[in-house]
Amino acid sequence: MTEPLAPGATIGILGGGQLGRMLSVAAARLGFRTHIFEPGAEPPAGHVAHRVTTASYEDAAALAAFAEAVDVVSYEFENIPTTALDAIEAIRPIRPGRRALAVSQDRLIEKAFLTDLGLATAPFAAVDDEVDLAEAIAEIGTPAILKTRRFGYDGKGQERLLVPEHGARALNAMDGAPAILEGVVEFGQEISVIAARGLTGEVACYDPGTNVHREGILRSTTVPAPLTAAQRTDAVILAGRILNALHYVGVMGVELFVTESGLVVNEIAPRVHNSGHWTQDGCVIDQFEQHIRAIAGWPMGDGTRHSDIEMENLIGDDMDRVPDLAARPDCALHIYGKAEVKPGRKMGHVNRRLGPAG
Amino acid sequence: MTEPLAPGATIGILGGGQLGRMLSVAAARLGFRTHIFEPGAEPPAGHVAHRVTTASYEDAAALAAFAEAVDVVSYEFENIPTTALDAIEAIRPIRPGRRALAVSQDRLIEKAFLTDLGLATAPFAAVDDEVDLAEAIAEIGTPAILKTRRFGYDGKGQERLLVPEHGARALNAMDGAPAILEGVVEFGQEISVIAARGLTGEVACYDPGTNVHREGILRSTTVPAPLTAAQRTDAVILAGRILNALHYVGVMGVELFVTESGLVVNEIAPRVHNSGHWTQDGCVIDQFEQHIRAIAGWPMGDGTRHSDIEMENLIGDDMDRVPDLAARPDCALHIYGKAEVKPGRKMGHVNRRLGPAG
Repeated sequence: MTEPLAPGATIGILGGGQLGRMLSVAAARLGFRTHIFEPGAEPPAGHVAHRVTTASYEDAAALAAFAEAVDVVSYEFENIPTTALDAIEAIRPIRPGRRALAVSQDRLIEKAFLTDLGLATAPFAAVDDEVDLAEAIAEIGTPAILKTRRFGYDGKGQERLLVPEHGARALNAMDGAPAILEGVVEFGQEISVIAARGLTGEVACYDPGTNVHREGILRSTTVPAPLTAAQRTDAVILAGRILNALHYVGVMGVELFVTESGLVVNEIAPRVHNSGHWTQDGCVIDQFEQHIRAIAGWPMGDGTRHSDIEMENLIGDDMDRVPDLAARPDCALHIYGKAEVKPGRKMGHVNRRLGPAG
Repeated sequence: MTEPLAPGATIGILGGGQLGRMLSVAAARLGFRTHIFEPGAEPPAGHVAHRVTTASYEDAAALAAFAEAVDVVSYEFENIPTTALDAIEAIRPIRPGRRALAVSQDRLIEKAFLTDLGLATAPFAAVDDEVDLAEAIAEIGTPAILKTRRFGYDGKGQERLLVPEHGARALNAMDGAPAILEGVVEFGQEISVIAARGLTGEVACYDPGTNVHREGILRSTTVPAPLTAAQRTDAVILAGRILNALHYVGVMGVELFVTESGLVVNEIAPRVHNSGHWTQDGCVIDQFEQHIRAIAGWPMGDGTRHSDIEMENLIGDDMDRVPDLAARPDCALHIYGKAEVKPGRKMGHVNRRLGPAG
């Protein structure tokens, strides 16, 4: 399929969380129907989707029926089992494609891909056992972070080594999973570039925002990030190189450290990204619509920002602040419809409009 | 119910067209679920709603089950049978309330209500038969428009009398339905005020926009309308008087003629309104969210406009322009997901951002 999808077509989305939910709304705005595939009951995306399939990623028959029922498949998270991707891809295109998933599913492959492109990353070394770990610590030093190569998110599967003696406990916490030791990068700020590449190869980026994390979870993104023109240009060119190298189709989140010696890539996510939620209230075409446009073969929005925005996540008990936030005329609330509030769970976010794009 | 509805509650909407669809998306953004009641199959709102009941407005059992399943009921159109409203209201609150519906369902009652408030309308007279018509023409003169008192929309049920001799044919076209003869108002422009009133009585208005109709159907709304400060103030005060007189809860569309002798009310619609679609891309809180906030007992947004917008409806074959519009970075497309393109059918709209609010 290389023709643009016409309104009325159905977009399949793997994963029914908040990203799938906001993708579903964006797809509807363009006249598409959505079909969510999600193992869990009552997925938030299901409240705004045309159809929901509740089945496991191991259920080949359900995956095949899902693929047959849609025109193209995308996803809201990168840790999809390879067998599920195989089952779907035999029937319908998956966008972004397999190469982007393979790279982003494994921190070691990701780092190798980035350094092969000539981009700077934190120093890293593969760690499968005590011998590897000792060598890695000798090479990288401390402080450093030991991370599982796969299935990490929101700071999960990560152990910090302040001194070499923390290594044994950290390796134990990996529970036998293949790991990677990453050096700690000294940086002034962390920024995100939300970049998109269309089916015909055009690349468009939103202005970088500054991210603030706490306990491994993104708390806020403020746009624009305080950068020099040269830094902004570097960030955009760097993101474009990643997308082009992967023949990428869709939106990608690229997290960068801004250091004295230039930009260092922290990680990439082959999907719409929490640090791009500000685009919902800062741009005519937001990251969710941009992603749907890309996978549907439509032209890309150009990423123009009309307003400066501070996006803040509402995590756990932050939901108690909703009545106050609702009374503020400059705040756009986005609540995810999750049944239960839990500590550390992303329940929604608020985009505060700071003023016209400055 | 006077406590604000908490996220997770369910909002029932009568009618599954594009207004119900956009209300459903707005409700989801605040964490509410929606339940659509619609007699027709495959309603556009159903693509983005949590539940859909497909049943007739004469089906008392279905109406009762629907009302039991939701926390509050609203609607996307005003011509809901009274028996259906009775069945629902016995179980759940309907917002906006019955008084607003009674007034807006009947052009004669509406005109009488407005003139009782001291507001200017077109000259009007009830017409049930030939004798009434002759008297009405003698009083109002021609040109004039004969309209059915009930169930009119998008110019349907209207006949224009250029000269008195057109009366007989026009009355014939009413097909025995009670009618109203309205004089033609000479006006410079038609504007809309999209006004909202919260459960606690606070009123908020968006800036008036200029409407352009063709063949009785709204084609475009441009915001801001070219008005003097005094005219803008008059429009807002006038809308506030209407909402307060009705103890209204929700968003109302108030269409006004701007004449040399002041503002003349054309008609009111007790719901979100086509001429308020520009708010989706011109305001932090749009008319759909404003309506949901009102009926849920939340605080009103203040109506601040951050961008100037030209909204254009996509009617029938206008859908052929979608590929071109999709390539424009200043255009936000909103497509309604209707299965079939028909001449005169509203298929979507496009909000073109003209620049920062001027």
